Amino acid sequence: MYYLGVDLGGTNIAIGIVDKDGKILNKASVSTPSNGEYTDVVTAMIDLSKELISDNGLELSDFEAVGIGCPGSIDYQKGSVAYSNNLHFNDAPITAEFQKHWNIPVIIENDANAAAYGEYIVNGNNADVFVAITLGTGVGGGVIIDGKIFRGANGAGAELGHSVLVHNGLPCTCGRKGCWEAYAAATALVKQTKVAIEKHPESLMSQYAKERGKVNGRTAFDAAKKGDAAANEVVKKYIEYVADGIVNMVNIFQPNKVVIGGGISNEGEYLLAPIREYVKKYDYNKLFTPVEIDAATLLNDAGIIGAALAAKNFK
Amino acid sequence: MYYLGVDLGGTNIAIGIVDKDGKILNKASVSTPSNGEYTDVVTAMIDLSKELISDNGLELSDFEAVGIGCPGSIDYQKGSVAYSNNLHFNDAPITAEFQKHWNIPVIIENDANAAAYGEYIVNGNNADVFVAITLGTGVGGGVIIDGKIFRGANGAGAELGHSVLVHNGLPCTCGRKGCWEAYAAATALVKQTKVAIEKHPESLMSQYAKERGKVNGRTAFDAAKKGDAAANEVVKKYIEYVADGIVNMVNIFQPNKVVIGGGISNEGEYLLAPIREYVKKYDYNKLFTPVEIDAATLLNDAGIIGAALAAKNFK
Repeated sequence: MYYLGVDLGGTNIAIGIVDKDGKILNKASVSTPSNGEYTDVVTAMIDLSKELISDNGLELSDFEAVGIGCPGSIDYQKGSVAYSNNLHFNDAPITAEFQKHWNIPVIIENDANAAAYGEYIVNGNNADVFVAITLGTGVGGGVIIDGKIFRGANGAGAELGHSVLVHNGLPCTCGRKGCWEAYAAATALVKQTKVAIEKHPESLMSQYAKERGKVNGRTAFDAAKKGDAAANEVVKKYIEYVADGIVNMVNIFQPNKVVIGGGISNEGEYLLAPIREYVKKYDYNKLFTPVEIDAATLLNDAGIIGAALAAKNFK
Repeated sequence: MYYLGVDLGGTNIAIGIVDKDGKILNKASVSTPSNGEYTDVVTAMIDLSKELISDNGLELSDFEAVGIGCPGSIDYQKGSVAYSNNLHFNDAPITAEFQKHWNIPVIIENDANAAAYGEYIVNGNNADVFVAITLGTGVGGGVIIDGKIFRGANGAGAELGHSVLVHNGLPCTCGRKGCWEAYAAATALVKQTKVAIEKHPESLMSQYAKERGKVNGRTAFDAAKKGDAAANEVVKKYIEYVADGIVNMVNIFQPNKVVIGGGISNEGEYLLAPIREYVKKYDYNKLFTPVEIDAATLLNDAGIIGAALAAKNFK
């Protein structure tokens, strides 16, 4: 039996055929219809699903459930997207619409939760408490407790990036001031890098920015690794923001494991080693088993795999 | 059937006879032996328990379980206190020692967790997710998820007060800088009040401090209620610290209900109304049922009741 995992984003719909162990057999993607009509989005999903399934010599009856991971606020009672900025959805009954075309168990899950669940199953060693952090446009969070996706009482929980780390600090997109996200997201690192480039036009970081025609999440890391002092300051401070927020989550959740995903996690040990050191120093728990901190492993497939496995386990 | 609830503190041992609904039939207390010998502490507990039980015309056999709430780090596997600063305990096997004297199911629980559980049962309306915050010497936290006390993977979780709210802010007893506790504890309010009194010797707040011979958690609130501008500034800023941290917990947990305990919670609506307003404004969730925020109701009995009810439900 197989499971279909759908990573429904504002730009693309990516769909994968996933086995019971979270392995992707094959995947395909298509542009997301951008007119905000959920019926069109579901039609595109159905068409791509059927094509992918038949291209792989399978039948609809080989599938036990479908999981759809989706950005925005999910109404889990109704199986609908209550609101999604990226998809221009307002109260979109995705699962019911999907089932009009294909009568199969369908679950819908917030994309950050789905990705966290994928990491948990594949990379979580049966943790009692597991936290996934994604450093991307924002700081996404997902928490798995006793094998279940933790969503709070109303489905909107685990917004870990929207906890204030710097009281009265930088404005966040959510309306608060000083959210962790405003300091630790990849986009925040880009801003921090740009400020430092202004101040240090002589730096290697500045040279990289010119050569590459842009500043991204790698600019400061790349220059720091070559010994650029200004870049090193940026990276050190950025890692401190990331790590200070992770200690918060550790003191709150005391998870067995935290995984860090998003493009920045490609920095590997250069990012992880100082985070581990910081967390070890400031973790409130000094007596019991300490948290393990690792890079996420599923990368761009986390959404597909997590949605499929959530469908398998919670359909 | 009855349950015995023990609130084991550094100064006093308070014990109550509790019924299945969390009502205290009667209670008594005694000084905690201060020599750091857990055997002496357990003997004192046993003596007081037997006295209380016989004074109320009951027998040991009328009791189904005993719950002990205790400050410090609990080893739930062993039923021991791994470390408690207040009690001078290191690896103290309290439950086993207790059962040498009285062969009955005994559970041990961190005191903040026990108090939160008591509030949850009595005041939590069967919340799926319930958070209790105590504004005292520190900022204590307790989280109940699906009827279970959330302790993290290793038992040391839910240290909500030790999440940084002010990055690189005031030093906290835990070794971090800028913990919520360093700004929102009752002791933090006292410090904030003292600083304001220095700056505003003409204020009513300053006069109250002189008349009463001390500054405490009520000084600024009392003066603010009489229209003292300097006191009002202190109270406003203090409430902002409390509320900003509560929004963090709301965005993370999206609980059905948050209760606020500790002496400060006696300020009632004067404290709660601005917190509710702040949380409503900054809660990430605008679509689904919002969190309810209330004062704790069990006050000093929360520990006894929570420990007894935890014994009843988790023995």
